[in-house]
Amino acid sequence: MAAELDPEASAAARPLLTDLYQATMALGYWRAGRARDQAEFELYFRRCPFGGAFALAAGLRDCVRFLRTFRLRDADVQFLASVLPSDTDPAFFEHLRTLDCSGVTVRALPEGSLAFPSVPLLQVSGPLLVVQLLETPLLCLVSYASLIATNAARLRLIAGPTKRLLEMGLRRAQGPDGGLTASTYSYLGGFDGSSNVLAGQLRGVPLAGTLAHSFVTSFSGAEVPPDPMLAPAASQGPRVDLAACVEAWLERVCAHLGLGVQEPHRGERAAFVAYALAFPRAFQGLLDTYSVQRSGLPNFLAVALALGELGYRAVGIRLDSGDLLQQAQEIRRVFRTVAAQFQMPWLESVPIAVSNNIDEEELARLAQEGSEVNVIGIGTTVVTCPRQPSLGCVYKLVSVGGQPRMKLTEDPEKQTLPGSKAAFRLLGSDGSLLMDVLQLAEEPPPQPGQELRVWPRGAREACVVRPAHVEPLLRLCIQQGQLCGPLPSLAESRAFAQLSLGRLNPEHKRLEQPAPYQVALSDELQALVDRLSTGGSS
Amino acid sequence: MAAELDPEASAAARPLLTDLYQATMALGYWRAGRARDQAEFELYFRRCPFGGAFALAAGLRDCVRFLRTFRLRDADVQFLASVLPSDTDPAFFEHLRTLDCSGVTVRALPEGSLAFPSVPLLQVSGPLLVVQLLETPLLCLVSYASLIATNAARLRLIAGPTKRLLEMGLRRAQGPDGGLTASTYSYLGGFDGSSNVLAGQLRGVPLAGTLAHSFVTSFSGAEVPPDPMLAPAASQGPRVDLAACVEAWLERVCAHLGLGVQEPHRGERAAFVAYALAFPRAFQGLLDTYSVQRSGLPNFLAVALALGELGYRAVGIRLDSGDLLQQAQEIRRVFRTVAAQFQMPWLESVPIAVSNNIDEEELARLAQEGSEVNVIGIGTTVVTCPRQPSLGCVYKLVSVGGQPRMKLTEDPEKQTLPGSKAAFRLLGSDGSLLMDVLQLAEEPPPQPGQELRVWPRGAREACVVRPAHVEPLLRLCIQQGQLCGPLPSLAESRAFAQLSLGRLNPEHKRLEQPAPYQVALSDELQALVDRLSTGGSS
Repeated sequence: MAAELDPEASAAARPLLTDLYQATMALGYWRAGRARDQAEFELYFRRCPFGGAFALAAGLRDCVRFLRTFRLRDADVQFLASVLPSDTDPAFFEHLRTLDCSGVTVRALPEGSLAFPSVPLLQVSGPLLVVQLLETPLLCLVSYASLIATNAARLRLIAGPTKRLLEMGLRRAQGPDGGLTASTYSYLGGFDGSSNVLAGQLRGVPLAGTLAHSFVTSFSGAEVPPDPMLAPAASQGPRVDLAACVEAWLERVCAHLGLGVQEPHRGERAAFVAYALAFPRAFQGLLDTYSVQRSGLPNFLAVALALGELGYRAVGIRLDSGDLLQQAQEIRRVFRTVAAQFQMPWLESVPIAVSNNIDEEELARLAQEGSEVNVIGIGTTVVTCPRQPSLGCVYKLVSVGGQPRMKLTEDPEKQTLPGSKAAFRLLGSDGSLLMDVLQLAEEPPPQPGQELRVWPRGAREACVVRPAHVEPLLRLCIQQGQLCGPLPSLAESRAFAQLSLGRLNPEHKRLEQPAPYQVALSDELQALVDRLSTGGSS
Repeated sequence: MAAELDPEASAAARPLLTDLYQATMALGYWRAGRARDQAEFELYFRRCPFGGAFALAAGLRDCVRFLRTFRLRDADVQFLASVLPSDTDPAFFEHLRTLDCSGVTVRALPEGSLAFPSVPLLQVSGPLLVVQLLETPLLCLVSYASLIATNAARLRLIAGPTKRLLEMGLRRAQGPDGGLTASTYSYLGGFDGSSNVLAGQLRGVPLAGTLAHSFVTSFSGAEVPPDPMLAPAASQGPRVDLAACVEAWLERVCAHLGLGVQEPHRGERAAFVAYALAFPRAFQGLLDTYSVQRSGLPNFLAVALALGELGYRAVGIRLDSGDLLQQAQEIRRVFRTVAAQFQMPWLESVPIAVSNNIDEEELARLAQEGSEVNVIGIGTTVVTCPRQPSLGCVYKLVSVGGQPRMKLTEDPEKQTLPGSKAAFRLLGSDGSLLMDVLQLAEEPPPQPGQELRVWPRGAREACVVRPAHVEPLLRLCIQQGQLCGPLPSLAESRAFAQLSLGRLNPEHKRLEQPAPYQVALSDELQALVDRLSTGGSS
């Protein structure tokens, strides 16, 4: 029943989807009497992905779903008991049975926000034992979602605003909800839709699909459809035998193209007729099963023209091999001459869709000026993020019992920023982004129009900035286990992502060697870092 | 209830986890009266991953689970009705409601088998509409599982047989069951275990875990454990105050190492004491939160020696930054001198575990002769397979209504091999693998000791081979929806994978520029390919 009521229940992460050391540390905290100490963790990344200078925050809706249902079941506790020392105090397991997120508070960057290194995507506070246990699932839910949203945003920047970008990578994902996550967050990042039906059902992602080569090869041409008759689009006039019309049109098309009427594959044509009978208002052709020019294209045209005579308009073709750009140009040229020859002007602009291992370079080529490609389906390159398949988010303790905590380590990049913090985005008078500032939670927020001394990350000197506008970055999302308000819809987050990107200076949006966007610390936060770094106490 | 009964229910793929074109094609087949035509598809890959010459087949157990529960729910059918044309015949949706896999038969390479290009991992036959719908989920379940098993096998080849390899990549996976799949199949491919608790609970993968930096930084040293007393391991003798013993040992350790007793971080030491109180028989230290040499190591030694005095033996340390190999050598040297100094010989051989973005190159360095590293935790490199994050499996129609089908296309690599086939592995007299042969299902199997003329893929000439042994590769797994026998356990498949790899000639196991392993077609299959390629019918 629960699964029927919550269609996403099966996609939600489970409490035991975590690293074993979270459970061992839980026992350690409990044994030390510290299970209920108030602690705060921050989830952030250290470097922007793909050599770029920005990322998009995503995955919050999955985190919220996880946190609201977080609870160890009996079977979970029994399993933990089986892997922890056999002489563990049974009271520890009783404690585990009581756990939920009712004491947990989460502040977050809204989904679709620009995110930069060291700026928390999530701030999670609550009882030490619980917020520690949340580490792995939250990282698992945020890292890939943000990576794929960022990847999709980059692909959108390459493609420009008008090409229709479709995610088709379910079969290339890391199993079922890798695929669901990819479809959801590539849409958030700027794609137009996905082939993934479950993403449409559960997340409302717009769906798109054509047909596969197997559909085409399954027909030999000897098949007899049970009902070959089709009524005109306007429902007036007699039904006609579509297959017979198509044969008549094929002769005219072949004569026009200078092809022998025997050249186009009859099985392919039978497949197109079958598809047209099922989808007269949404007929599409996949042209490269046998030969695009000598078979796929004339067969498509014959069916499209036969449908056109009945008042239907074909909605697209797809190419899945060869030089996609060049073929699209040739096909568009043929569409134009055929449209003129047979006085079906709508045929000129039938969308041309392409797919086949399209990467960033090929996408740029397909999106160049004058390209006749309209729809681009991308699978592997969007889903697996081959340039950098992991964002590398971390989840670090910043305070416990109200005291700031810092990991010093001998690797400077792995040092953490201590203390409970607030984060602000400083903007210029034209609304463009200047820098993000991290400060201690108790400091007053930066004031618009006033000078502020800050310490840019990685620089040795402070600098002074005077923002025209100041925006707080982190929103209270869950307070003591209670959701603070409705989350935006996926489409709203998608629009917010494009809005956010629109305010970012082009030098930070360059995909190769962009100018880094500055993140800076307040005077007080920098002083705390310095004090703790030299071994001083807080 | 169902979720309680089948602990994996929520991890199983759902029928709508598929590409939209599967649903549109389903309608096309149905409208053409072909929904129940008998069809066969093959799932295979075209090139071995990672530039290698082999892959391991995996994912079958997930496919079986999916197929046995495959059924469209009412909500699923209603959703499909909402995305298909509104004038679609309602009888189509009635047909969808009746679908299951009771007419589906599956032959498969057993999990852990060596797999090579063009050799089917799965052969799926049944009603055309159903077996078409299965395409995307089966690809999703097999591709990543096989990719990660192969990746794990490569990493095991690099590490050699004695290093303990642990998968720790859950936080770097594509969401929850990306992580579960990675943990399951990296174990199958040769890892020793995983940090992923759910993989332990659901799949029986051995678990391992240490502690995180947050545990260490959460302690300032001012905390007072509710019960600092620990009984000796043998349970004889009085309980002692562990923290006090540790302070006494710290003085001796610091004197021995030439460190000031104030140098080791007291918060870190408190964390180690807390962990030791919770895990006296399984004490481990994470040494690099502050400074390995000046803090982590002396603190660990003080706790390990205090425990040692009580009869407990520490089980390991972990390093997560810096030069892992060099630090391991230094730490082992210190372990030896301290073991001798304080007459605790077991301390010499406390396992040293390392982690921190370990890739193939770093793994080779850590596994070199004389390395003191014992346990290697790998996350991103195993889970995301950065060298090639997708295997690129395909699922192609090979016959329908008993007639072979072939996709010709102008891209030779994308041509398919027609017909229902059998596959055999030919072996030499020493049991080593010679080649795989694909032939038509109706041909008699190759006979041991007899000459066989075959056509190696990619060659223009036939060659003659005389195998000493012949093994059929594909096993009947599901017949008309019924499982044909119990599947091997994960541990059995893991052992089978290592056995399979052991029979492969080293020249094919080289990770860089290996000799390709030959896959060949029988005379009859080659003749069929030639006939269909030139437009002849079957």
